[in-house]
Amino acid sequence: MEMGSGDDERSGILARGWLLLKALPEKFKAKMVNFAVVTKKLGQDDPRRVIHSLKVGLALSLVSLFYYFETLFNSFGVYAMWAIMTVVVVFEFSVGATLGKGLNRAMATLVAGALGIGAHYMASISGNVGEPIILGIFVFFQAAVSTFIRFFPKIKARYDYGLLIFILTFALVSVSGFREDEILEFAHKRLATVVIGACACVVVSIFVCPVWAGQDLHNLTSLNIEKLGTFLEGFGYRYFGATEDEEFKGNESFVHGYKSVLNSKTIEETLANFARWEPGHGRFMYRHPWKQYLKVGTLTRQCAYRIEALNGFLSSDIQVQPEFARKIEDTCTKMSLDSGKALKELALAVKTMTRPSSVDSHVANLKTSTKNLRCLLKSGLGNETDLLKVIPVTTVASLLIDVAMSVEEITASVNELASLAHFKQKAKDTNLTVEKRHEVVKSLAKVNAADDVITVDLESENSVPLRAS
Amino acid sequence: MEMGSGDDERSGILARGWLLLKALPEKFKAKMVNFAVVTKKLGQDDPRRVIHSLKVGLALSLVSLFYYFETLFNSFGVYAMWAIMTVVVVFEFSVGATLGKGLNRAMATLVAGALGIGAHYMASISGNVGEPIILGIFVFFQAAVSTFIRFFPKIKARYDYGLLIFILTFALVSVSGFREDEILEFAHKRLATVVIGACACVVVSIFVCPVWAGQDLHNLTSLNIEKLGTFLEGFGYRYFGATEDEEFKGNESFVHGYKSVLNSKTIEETLANFARWEPGHGRFMYRHPWKQYLKVGTLTRQCAYRIEALNGFLSSDIQVQPEFARKIEDTCTKMSLDSGKALKELALAVKTMTRPSSVDSHVANLKTSTKNLRCLLKSGLGNETDLLKVIPVTTVASLLIDVAMSVEEITASVNELASLAHFKQKAKDTNLTVEKRHEVVKSLAKVNAADDVITVDLESENSVPLRAS
Repeated sequence: MEMGSGDDERSGILARGWLLLKALPEKFKAKMVNFAVVTKKLGQDDPRRVIHSLKVGLALSLVSLFYYFETLFNSFGVYAMWAIMTVVVVFEFSVGATLGKGLNRAMATLVAGALGIGAHYMASISGNVGEPIILGIFVFFQAAVSTFIRFFPKIKARYDYGLLIFILTFALVSVSGFREDEILEFAHKRLATVVIGACACVVVSIFVCPVWAGQDLHNLTSLNIEKLGTFLEGFGYRYFGATEDEEFKGNESFVHGYKSVLNSKTIEETLANFARWEPGHGRFMYRHPWKQYLKVGTLTRQCAYRIEALNGFLSSDIQVQPEFARKIEDTCTKMSLDSGKALKELALAVKTMTRPSSVDSHVANLKTSTKNLRCLLKSGLGNETDLLKVIPVTTVASLLIDVAMSVEEITASVNELASLAHFKQKAKDTNLTVEKRHEVVKSLAKVNAADDVITVDLESENSVPLRAS
Repeated sequence: MEMGSGDDERSGILARGWLLLKALPEKFKAKMVNFAVVTKKLGQDDPRRVIHSLKVGLALSLVSLFYYFETLFNSFGVYAMWAIMTVVVVFEFSVGATLGKGLNRAMATLVAGALGIGAHYMASISGNVGEPIILGIFVFFQAAVSTFIRFFPKIKARYDYGLLIFILTFALVSVSGFREDEILEFAHKRLATVVIGACACVVVSIFVCPVWAGQDLHNLTSLNIEKLGTFLEGFGYRYFGATEDEEFKGNESFVHGYKSVLNSKTIEETLANFARWEPGHGRFMYRHPWKQYLKVGTLTRQCAYRIEALNGFLSSDIQVQPEFARKIEDTCTKMSLDSGKALKELALAVKTMTRPSSVDSHVANLKTSTKNLRCLLKSGLGNETDLLKVIPVTTVASLLIDVAMSVEEITASVNELASLAHFKQKAKDTNLTVEKRHEVVKSLAKVNAADDVITVDLESENSVPLRAS
């Protein structure tokens, strides 16, 4: 019997092994399919990624051929490889990042090269025994100091890479062990090849389908405000369940769009840092007020925290609304709608760089509604005695008042941005079509309901869809 | 007259110029003083920064001297500079980051070197005309594909640097234009020097005052939970103004400590990525459940969003509390205090890696309080008819119920962490001193009130203050 069960076990293992083996190609196929799907999605989400990859290939091939022929004809010799290195490490996704890295690298190479030659000279006059000791002390000291300076937040944001290259070049030049004439040639060649590589990057980055960090920050700011607007437009209807509109009931994605705004701080700060390196481009001048975008972003996140609180009430399953809710429903729905419309108007204004026109009327509406709501709340509960039933509704009302305040703050800061960045005044006639525009917005929103990026762009010439990078 | 006013203007300009000139040394002095203050603060906030700077200096001096003597005796020749480069670019603040970069660099150099030799061979057999064309195509193709692969989120998190070095080395080796025997030497020397540099980094990083990313993540998780706990412990007293305790009234910094938790996502994810490269160290095994820390972190942030909403009510200036508030004051204060104590208990448990013991009693208290609060709210407003006055209090009550739910979730996920990471069971006798511990916590909190990091550490052996890096 025992033998039999052993046999059973063995054949069981064999069978399982065979099944596993048979499943292997299936698994491999599934992985490959998954890989293909992810690849396609990455490319479709932002086609600029594909273009960027091709640009890197282009810049690197150009410099590689230069290296190839240089090595053959031996004027830079083995140092020409630094041009390749520079291209690979300097070429970044956006123009700002590439320019920042390129300038950092070139400047740091220049300064550290000069200092390194000085250090080398001072060490060489101190004799054979003293030389390695003095060099060691120099390298240790500058590496420690430069590394510590990299911890300064302001320097880290803009010059981190420059300091890295400074440490590197100083060490290379000072300890190279060459004679005086050799070392000058070494430093000169390193600088020349680094500049060649950096120039190749900057030229390809700017002149072949450029990706501007400033434009990205601009779009992201607008998109984030729009996401909050989309949520708020639908919130009133969804919470009070008063809509027969499928648009607001069926579409879950537009409810959760705001979540990404909660964690947008890092990406906004990075983009703003890159944007400051960029020259004027398109609708943006050099010294465009990028800092103001960060302020708008902070207020937008503030608003998003309040929306996060509101969202908690959407998911809680209150089937029966108390009598009292009917009383404030209209005002709350109106407030939510007005907040949403105001934010969408602001998003559109930022996107098209025109001064927000109808937003003031929405803000005025919000103020009136806030007053009305306060009056309604002041008049008490009516017949309702169970406070527990009423609390969710009153909390929602109180949060909507907070959101309205947030909307006012965002409006003020977008207005400040508009005057700092000289947004265009809107033409009179488009002012009249605000009502009409909202109709179109609605119909467009239906069309794009499947997308989580709703693009509404009636006035602007360049109607590229907004995208978070 | 005009002449006179022109003279006045000129002398005015001169006087202003003189004032500006006189102010220059003052300004310079002020800048230097400011610089010194910032430097001192950076060093004091985290002395590991100073140590790290010295470590970089040490590693670089070691490798530089190796380079210096190598160049003199010429066995690696000019390629020895790659050892210096490797040290400068690979040495990072934490062991995990250094190991990750070092392994990425070494592996990528090995693989890309082999492929590069293959590409070079294939190009060289195609004749003088075909060679540069084929090489250009190879370089373009691999750079474009590798660059695109860097966009995959999972690969970006762990292997971004490896792909960069892959592109670099492949281009260098394949287009080097050397003969067959030279290219083997070139690839071999590059690999050897890179490995030497990487080893120097890893050895200094691990054996001289190591900074573990895992430890940092662990401390940060604990610190963030503690910050929320500190806020909640004080909130009830502060909001209902029922305390005579100076500790809760005077200290503003402990109220705003939680703000940093809102934006902690990026740093937590970065640390977790680094931690996964680290070998076992101290109390952490290899394959410590770092992912669970991220889950705890997400729930902590969720709770922080709710606290952000609560904080809004602290700053609003309601002088007179309505009659109704008196009714629920005790229960709310108790809930806030219990939530705070539970969170602090959890923070302590994470920090000392012991299973949380008394937290269950706090959670049970919270459940009872929630029930009580619901009952009180169910019984209605009493004499109060002005809903507007009551709303802030009821909103606070409702938010506190949400926070209590958050605390339960955090407790569950910390318990999961405790079982995944095999936290120690606490000894029985310490269980009995919970009451006493809270007394000590209070007195300690008074002592440390000036600090925004309150360190309470009675059981753990290593009572280093928690620090956010």
